[in-house]
Parts: sequence; structure tokens; C-alpha cells
Amino acid sequence: MRALVTGASGFVGRTLLDHLATEGDVVTGLSRATGGPEITDRGAVHAAITGCEVDVIYHLAAQSHVPTAWSNPIDTLRINVEGTQNVLDAAADAPGKPRVLVVTSAEVYGSVTPDELPIHEDAPLRPNNPYAASKVAADAVAQQAWLGRGQDVIRLRAFNHLGPGQSSNFVCSGIAHRIASAERAGTRQIDVGNLNVRRDFSDVRDIVAAYRLVAESGQSGQVYNVCSGNDRSIGDVANGLLALSDADLKLVPHPDLVREVDTPVVRGDNSRIAADTGWQPQISLSTTLADVLADARATR
Amino acid sequence: MRALVTGASGFVGRTLLDHLATEGDVVTGLSRATGGPEITDRGAVHAAITGCEVDVIYHLAAQSHVPTAWSNPIDTLRINVEGTQNVLDAAADAPGKPRVLVVTSAEVYGSVTPDELPIHEDAPLRPNNPYAASKVAADAVAQQAWLGRGQDVIRLRAFNHLGPGQSSNFVCSGIAHRIASAERAGTRQIDVGNLNVRRDFSDVRDIVAAYRLVAESGQSGQVYNVCSGNDRSIGDVANGLLALSDADLKLVPHPDLVREVDTPVVRGDNSRIAADTGWQPQISLSTTLADVLADARATR
Repeated sequence: MRALVTGASGFVGRTLLDHLATEGDVVTGLSRATGGPEITDRGAVHAAITGCEVDVIYHLAAQSHVPTAWSNPIDTLRINVEGTQNVLDAAADAPGKPRVLVVTSAEVYGSVTPDELPIHEDAPLRPNNPYAASKVAADAVAQQAWLGRGQDVIRLRAFNHLGPGQSSNFVCSGIAHRIASAERAGTRQIDVGNLNVRRDFSDVRDIVAAYRLVAESGQSGQVYNVCSGNDRSIGDVANGLLALSDADLKLVPHPDLVREVDTPVVRGDNSRIAADTGWQPQISLSTTLADVLADARATR
Repeated sequence: MRALVTGASGFVGRTLLDHLATEGDVVTGLSRATGGPEITDRGAVHAAITGCEVDVIYHLAAQSHVPTAWSNPIDTLRINVEGTQNVLDAAADAPGKPRVLVVTSAEVYGSVTPDELPIHEDAPLRPNNPYAASKVAADAVAQQAWLGRGQDVIRLRAFNHLGPGQSSNFVCSGIAHRIASAERAGTRQIDVGNLNVRRDFSDVRDIVAAYRLVAESGQSGQVYNVCSGNDRSIGDVANGLLALSDADLKLVPHPDLVREVDTPVVRGDNSRIAADTGWQPQISLSTTLADVLADARATR
């Protein structure tokens, strides 16, 4: 396939580019970081997208940092909502009218109670931070492009993902980097936050494989959860990483890392994407953790 | 109550100001048309709203013309989504932290089939034009202000409303103006579009009465349909207006006015607002039509 990827320099974008190359796809990456257009620059986005002929656009570019969304909700709306509108409108004018995959987030579902699990795509959307609201808005913009003008658009709601190359702001990479530092320094203590919180973790390489399968065989207009269908605790992740180290380390709760969490468990329902595309996660959590720790040891 | 109204010069805004004055409220109207800030000017909106102490903000300012939303989706998103974010953020900083009523539209529900009627607030949102998408986005921004920071916000989804002073771009006022013109000119033919389409019509004066009741006794964080709970056909409206004229007129379908309509019937469920605030529509369709026709005869 011929593909265009926005947000190509991000964690998921880089992993997707690797996967598409492995599949033999011809790929154009758009990234502000490498001189590409700002996603909010409607004219530049239009020129970039209409200037190439592709089968599918993976729209990943986003402002996805929740604290930044709280401090700057307007920029977050512009990047995540107007950016999506710009990409969709350009795709509608582009040669061959490519399919557009709009990637949002499980954050759109907000806080859920255990009796609402697993989270199905038809669950109510209850955004509880400005990042989540911007992703609900992007979801609406993408949905209306399909309902209102029949554009070939698919929405993807990605749950938590892990993998080598992720920022250490995220819990798994953060713990891995602290383990690698402790190994180097010969110290014992690994600071951690809430260990009981349970989330639906997938390896980012499984996530991007799902995206490509959806590009090939997803249903136009549909929305898909991309998730493992299982929940694992942060403690499982932390202890899994710890077990990979020969050093004598211990997990120590640190007040700066412990956050108030109003959703003890998140688990998604992936039956729709499995039925429509045959996707199933392939990479075990232990493999992911080994790769994340190896990556953390190799980078400082 | 002390109230601030955005979009105060619009059809609903003017009617709301009249109603609040009748109720003895102290009202500040913000309107771009009378020198007020653009709702997209975050600093000016912040200054205007934090500069007065009110109990409630009625946020009506919007770009609500669907064809304009198709031709200019970005401005529509800025006015309807960023505008809502600006008002909410200013209200959060304003003295006394006023309640904010965010008015959206039944357009958020999109196309519905007869078996989905009446439309309850928990119905899925299926925006099928860029105006509707912008209102789903505004709904999300308002919802997250409640869920994410506990701000006193209520969302209102208004169904079709009619009344004196409405633009003749809307079907009822349009027919009334054509009747008034025919009466003056002594002609017989009144052009009409689809007469079989059924919508949930309310008098705008009932609608604004609902808004004030919600300001007084609505539940924080809640979303309310504002609708009559009945559906009437465009033919009912047209024939009701025709019956108010002594002239010998006839309705003639005109190809320019007949549109493809994918939702034959819209009817909302108003049980939630009725239960929480006691609101019930008071004005009969025949009274509304008489007032609309009188207004059309008085203006050219």
C-alpha cells in the first residue's frame, strides 16, 4: 500500500513507519519535527496531502500530553480538532480519495466503573480532561466526515501502549529507566506510584499492526477499540521489569508518583476489530517488558 | 438572578433578554454586533466575564448556519468549540464562579430512525454536518469542565424553535414572509418545500423560559433536551399559517425548496427537564404561528 503518516516522528509514528517498511509499503511521513507542516496550517497540510497519491492516511499527529492540555486547552483543540479537520478536508481533495484513519484514545471513555467493563465502542463518552475532550471532538469531526459526505474514514481508539522508544513520562518506560539507572549506580530503590491500578496494555508494535490491518480491511465509517482485552496492574508491569534485572532492587512507593485515580480498572473490548480484520495481539507482556528494559539500558 | 448572556443579539438571545427582564433579572448581554468581544478572543472574553459578578451565564453565541459550516468548518469550530472553552475558562475565574449553561442543538443526534424516537439524552451522537460536529465538540468541552474540574456546567440540547423575529431562512418564518408578501401583492402562490417532514417544534419563548428554569433548578453536570415532546409536519405549520390569512392562497412545492431529508421524523424526550425543573411548554403552535405571521406582516 501507499501510505501517508502524520505525526511520523512520535513514538507511535516511528513504530508505524518501521512496520509499514517491513510490509513493503511506500510511505510518506509528515512531521513538524522534520520540517513538515504544522497540522494547524490548513493550507500547508492541504498542499502536502493533495500533492501525493496514497491509499491511506494514518493521522497520528496530536497534542497528547494531559497536563499541557490543562494549561493550554486552546492549542490542544487546534492541534487535535482543527488538525483532524484539515487532514480530512485535504484527503477529500487528494488524488484517489485515500482512506483516513483517525487515531484517538481510550481517554474518550473517561472514568468507568468495574460493572461497565469491558469497554465497548458504543459506551458513553465521558471526557474528564481537556485532552480527552479534544479527542471526543476529533472523533465527532471524523464521524461527520463519514456520515455527512461519505468520506472513507475510520476512527481508532487506542488504549495504553508500551514499547521501546516511549517517553519515560509514561509509567512502564519510567520504571525501566529507573531500573537501568539503579543498575548503573548500584542503588536499590525504585520509586513507583499506584501499583494496584489496572490498565489495558498493548505492545505498540501490536497496535501499529492493528492500524495497518484496519487500513486494509476495516469498515468505512466504523470505530474500533485497539486494545488487548486484558487488564494488568502497574504492579505486574513493575514486578515484571524487576524480575528481568539481576540487581537486588525493591519497589518503593513515592508520594510524587502516587496520583488520585478515579478509575481503578480499564479493560477494552476488542471483539469488533478482531472480527473485522482478524487482528490479535501477538507480543506477550514479558517480551514487551524485556524490550523496554533493554531500550532503557541502551539510552540515558 | 444576575445573568450574563453571550450571543445576546441573536434570535434566541433577544428573546431570552426580554424574558429575563420580565423576571426581574439583572442582565449583561455580550454581543459582537453591539461592540462586545469576539467569542474567539480569549483575552477579551476573559476580561468581559471576569469583570462582572453574575449567578449564571447563558452561552448562546455560535455559528449556527449549516451551509456556512460546510464552507468554513474551521471558523465554525473556533466559534463553537474554542468559544465555549473561552467562556467556561473565564467563568471558572469569575467572581462567585457562576453556573454556565452551554446551549447546543438536537443536530448532535444526527439522523434517527422512527424506532429510535423519542430521542433521549443518552441517545448516541451522530453528527452528519460540520455544524453538528462542532456542537458535539462543544458538548464534550462542557462535559469535561464538569467531570474534570467540577465546574457548575449544564448542557442544553435545543430542538427546532419558532417565533417572531426568526430569520426567514428558517422554514416557518420563510413561509410566513411569503404569505405576507402574497397578501400585499395580491398573488396566490406560496412556495414550499417538503411538507411531510416532521420535527419537534417549540416556541422560542417557551425555550428561553426553559433555560431560565434550568439556571434556577437544573442539576450541575446534567444535559437536558429542550423540546416539546411532539412532532408536527411542515405541512401542519404551512397550513396553520395559511388558515390565518383571509387571502385565497395555495401551497405549491418548489424544487429549490425541496431537499433530500434522511430523517423523516424528529421527536425529543423532555421528561428529564420536566422532572428536574417543572418546565412544560405553554404556547400552542397556533399562537406561535399567529405571532410569526403578525411579525412577518409588520416587517418587509
